[in-house]
Amino acid sequence: MKIDVVTLFPEMFDGPLGHSMVKRAIDKEAVEINRVNLRAFGKGKHQQVDDTPYGGGAGMLLKPEPLFEAVESIEERHPDSKKRVILMDPAGKPFNQKMAEEFSEEEHLVFLCGHYEGYDERIRSLVTDEVSLGDYVLTGGELASMVMIDATVRLLPGVLGNADSAVTDSHSSGLLEHPHYTRPAEYKGMRVPDVLTNGNHALIDEWRHKESLKRTFLRRPDMLEGRSFSKKEEQWLEEFKAEENK
Amino acid sequence: MKIDVVTLFPEMFDGPLGHSMVKRAIDKEAVEINRVNLRAFGKGKHQQVDDTPYGGGAGMLLKPEPLFEAVESIEERHPDSKKRVILMDPAGKPFNQKMAEEFSEEEHLVFLCGHYEGYDERIRSLVTDEVSLGDYVLTGGELASMVMIDATVRLLPGVLGNADSAVTDSHSSGLLEHPHYTRPAEYKGMRVPDVLTNGNHALIDEWRHKESLKRTFLRRPDMLEGRSFSKKEEQWLEEFKAEENK
Repeated sequence: MKIDVVTLFPEMFDGPLGHSMVKRAIDKEAVEINRVNLRAFGKGKHQQVDDTPYGGGAGMLLKPEPLFEAVESIEERHPDSKKRVILMDPAGKPFNQKMAEEFSEEEHLVFLCGHYEGYDERIRSLVTDEVSLGDYVLTGGELASMVMIDATVRLLPGVLGNADSAVTDSHSSGLLEHPHYTRPAEYKGMRVPDVLTNGNHALIDEWRHKESLKRTFLRRPDMLEGRSFSKKEEQWLEEFKAEENK
Repeated sequence: MKIDVVTLFPEMFDGPLGHSMVKRAIDKEAVEINRVNLRAFGKGKHQQVDDTPYGGGAGMLLKPEPLFEAVESIEERHPDSKKRVILMDPAGKPFNQKMAEEFSEEEHLVFLCGHYEGYDERIRSLVTDEVSLGDYVLTGGELASMVMIDATVRLLPGVLGNADSAVTDSHSSGLLEHPHYTRPAEYKGMRVPDVLTNGNHALIDEWRHKESLKRTFLRRPDMLEGRSFSKKEEQWLEEFKAEENK
């Protein structure tokens, strides 16, 4: 997979691209990540990339020309790749795991990071996707694109050390994860549940499945909407509801 | 405000803390951000921070002791500050703008970044908040905490250059932002709407308000639930609905 990120702050990416899973994916050549410095396409002596808004108001807007030219430069470098051009935008579609899965199957992703107070509306005509990281305001699109790159790249074949790690995660199965425990068996008076140390794997699987459903029921009932349940799951849900009403 | 981040990858933060708004906030002494290297609290010769899960399964879990001791070391450095201890967790409460506003009023935030495949359940007993960045899976809590720090720090008094920039953002007003335009007036055949160049500020405000409502209606109708509308807004909503049904 190829990824290009158009940004005014290419050095912001040093840390996230140089560590952890994304670095591993780059080292394994599962992904090639290139940063495009938007400033290089700025206009005039000061390489201006922003300007005041028509109609007045606070803040500076990213001008259209530098972003168009930056994307054209990527097109020139890779004329044959099928590109998905993704604008980081608080008014975009909320990013989720399904989108990460979709992105992970693409040939070439181009992330456009807005900055300052916003950007010229015409920039939207450049893009295939407008995506929001969540319902909160960030100072720029850089962190948002790093998050999307991380969520996407870890799904590429061969990137995660253990083949089924990606499958058993929260949100991939549609349920939150069950509790996990590791050594020591007792710490500050808190003990590991007996079921996990008894070696009965059928019981352990059942306990984990039930705890996973319980946590989702208690914390994120919205994730259960539209889901179909097994007989056993329905029974558990009745139990959780009875406990709640006590 | 004081922020401590407990992480296995302190260098990942160099970029995001060294640029843009967060750097400005640090320079202005609006915030003091300290990284706590979890590895320093690792156990044994190899400073081990993780171990295999009880009950079997893929992946390694963060052990409880290093995280407890890391938080205790922050407590020792700042025994008198009122702390909010925030665990980055996919099963946590989804992060949103309201939470960023709440965080921005605290004295001392402590972010705990999980990594690897998960962490020992007992770590939850350490925290005041469990927060998820969104419904997607990341390789660690580092990027999630960077996003929350960015969203929080920009709300601190004096950090944003322009006093009303924070107020007029998407999500702060409960509506998505209206379109913005800057020079040139025409680019690749696309023109700035006339209303923005006529200098009638009452008309401009009305256009912006309407476009903001329209964009929210079309893209994020969920954001309008439970909101009360003015007469004018109700009229506009009728218009949008009529257009949609054409």
